[in-house]
Amino acid sequence: MSRSKLLEGLKVIDITIVIAGPTVTYLLVDMGADVIKVEHPVRGDDARHFMPQKNGICSSFIWMNRGKKGLAVDLNKPEGQEIIKELAKQSDVLVENFTPGTMKRWGIDYETLSRINPGLIMVSVSGFGQTGPMSHLPGYDIVGQAMSGIMSVTGHPGGPPTRVGVLIGDTSSGAFGCIGLLAALYNREKTGLGQHVDISMQDVLISYYDLPTYTWEGKLLGRTGNRVPTIAPFDSYPTKDDRWVIIPAANNKLWEQLCEIMGRPELATDPRFADNPGRCKNYDELSEEISKWSSQHTLNEIIGLLQARGNPVSPILNIDEVLAMPHVKERGIVVDIDDPIAGRVSTANIPIKFSRTPASISGPAPMLGEHTREILSSLGYPEENINKLAQDGVIKVI
Amino acid sequence: MSRSKLLEGLKVIDITIVIAGPTVTYLLVDMGADVIKVEHPVRGDDARHFMPQKNGICSSFIWMNRGKKGLAVDLNKPEGQEIIKELAKQSDVLVENFTPGTMKRWGIDYETLSRINPGLIMVSVSGFGQTGPMSHLPGYDIVGQAMSGIMSVTGHPGGPPTRVGVLIGDTSSGAFGCIGLLAALYNREKTGLGQHVDISMQDVLISYYDLPTYTWEGKLLGRTGNRVPTIAPFDSYPTKDDRWVIIPAANNKLWEQLCEIMGRPELATDPRFADNPGRCKNYDELSEEISKWSSQHTLNEIIGLLQARGNPVSPILNIDEVLAMPHVKERGIVVDIDDPIAGRVSTANIPIKFSRTPASISGPAPMLGEHTREILSSLGYPEENINKLAQDGVIKVI
Repeated sequence: MSRSKLLEGLKVIDITIVIAGPTVTYLLVDMGADVIKVEHPVRGDDARHFMPQKNGICSSFIWMNRGKKGLAVDLNKPEGQEIIKELAKQSDVLVENFTPGTMKRWGIDYETLSRINPGLIMVSVSGFGQTGPMSHLPGYDIVGQAMSGIMSVTGHPGGPPTRVGVLIGDTSSGAFGCIGLLAALYNREKTGLGQHVDISMQDVLISYYDLPTYTWEGKLLGRTGNRVPTIAPFDSYPTKDDRWVIIPAANNKLWEQLCEIMGRPELATDPRFADNPGRCKNYDELSEEISKWSSQHTLNEIIGLLQARGNPVSPILNIDEVLAMPHVKERGIVVDIDDPIAGRVSTANIPIKFSRTPASISGPAPMLGEHTREILSSLGYPEENINKLAQDGVIKVI
Repeated sequence: MSRSKLLEGLKVIDITIVIAGPTVTYLLVDMGADVIKVEHPVRGDDARHFMPQKNGICSSFIWMNRGKKGLAVDLNKPEGQEIIKELAKQSDVLVENFTPGTMKRWGIDYETLSRINPGLIMVSVSGFGQTGPMSHLPGYDIVGQAMSGIMSVTGHPGGPPTRVGVLIGDTSSGAFGCIGLLAALYNREKTGLGQHVDISMQDVLISYYDLPTYTWEGKLLGRTGNRVPTIAPFDSYPTKDDRWVIIPAANNKLWEQLCEIMGRPELATDPRFADNPGRCKNYDELSEEISKWSSQHTLNEIIGLLQARGNPVSPILNIDEVLAMPHVKERGIVVDIDDPIAGRVSTANIPIKFSRTPASISGPAPMLGEHTREILSSLGYPEENINKLAQDGVIKVI
């Protein structure tokens, strides 16, 4: 069988808001799945109202919902819940990221829907997961960052705890939701059975660190600035032209090459610095030696010297500098979407390149209720029925 | 067919080092795949030598390689390359994260191996991807963070660019590698064909931000501290007991409730703060109002007041505080591994809960060369052949 898209034919119900849940389904839709985004018929997804906006629509909504079809349904109403049950009969996957308990209150929890369709895979992404004493609490990116310990280890010694400047709690939870979903899908190919996948943002962020790094021998490691505490050197150093240069040397070979480049070959055999444990232990002295050298050279000189030897090195770029890189342009990681309301919006492409069945953005995000009529028709709802539901405020059509 | 593990029977060759590549395969092995970790017979994976160590083995190696089998082979030698080709004939997936070009130099690139096994899926994770003018450059987590712009937006206004305190470049790239792998695997179930999946750490980290947030109207947004620039309020605020409290209110309902809790209902209808665009625009004044209130209450008082209304709220916890939470214990996200060399090591569990076929850690990381003899025997290598290869330094057996 020939398939031009990776996930061609996969049918997905997307009851998600903001970023964490929509991340799962933007990945699916870019890989060729059919995704129906379900929104409240009046408010829509909260992310429609975030900043920045153009013509009343927020860029993050466009970013996260490209290529999806829009179904506007009030899930508090029984007739709205019935629509989801009808959809669930013929869908492969349902993704949701409401506070645990909400799907049950709406009568469309996994237990109920799996009786209708035992092959259904449901993915629930939440701040604290579906179980445990804190599962009922609402979670947001900044809460996940704060309650996973990540803010406590981000920032400079003596400075305040620091939020990661991008929404890693949300996007990472979405990515792990997608992993769980696809693994469950592979298993369903073998068994015919679906299941419920439970993702907690707090769990995902905790899984990002090597615990012994921070708790080894009972001493809690705090904020170490730009220094990676487990490898040395692996830090930012000052340059002559008042910038910072990143110099990582993750093994002895790279360290020896760095010593040669610095004109200090004796440092490589100095017993304090001869292996990584020594370099970590004597880091202050090591840092002083490297900083002394880096301060005498410009950023570009240092990059040239290290790249010539194959040593990793980099500047710290701002986003304008990143977007201007020929490499970034050639990779095509930034693309334009022509949104019917906002106009042209630059956004991030899916960061996965497939050699045989490439993924790509297939269209703009839906307007609120844009495909309600089409979707209900395909479920067999007669037109007068659809009009009645719209009149009663159960759905929004346009 | 009954399968007790999600990815039961999936055969994986794992030619990875450090964190980014091993993340892909720790996820696979926890989900039930058979993973063979290939290492250099003398040095092994660089991560064996990082800190912190117990009895000469680093915790991050244990974290990333739990449950894998260990094959120690020198891939610079033709007899070593031959072993990978034999393995590739009977494997589903190969994951690697060497600098682009390395696999070709070893004669085990996708083009070569896909001729041997057209169903093979190869996943390559690298700093800058397999294509583009910078593809040949080595990438490490801190380089990816620096060259994606993330360090430029992490930190406090007026302060230096800041590294995210955990290895999000590595772990996120690994997560996206796993997504690509599983999607390609689903496609192979339908088509019988494998493909090559190319992950660039820089691409992945760029995909984590909503570009217009930072570049809207040509103005580059720099570091905003703990404030999320697109939603307000969504920040940390000082408390009476000299801590910080995170207060996010992502929609008007939560904002109105917050105003009531603060005893300032009039703020909810104040035209400056009536909707999210207004609250973002007038953030300094908004922040002042909230800080004035938060400074008069202790952290626990504020948490109690907001939780009672269902508003999101949190303290900023350090890792000891996180690990002590009953919720974290009940979720089981931290588990112990009994390592044959290091002893008992606490590490992060896989952050995905499957209702029908749970994933879990199946055993410790391999010792260098631990399963070389067993694996070569299963490929049909006679014992005298294995001994000869060991003598010649092509493999390491124990």
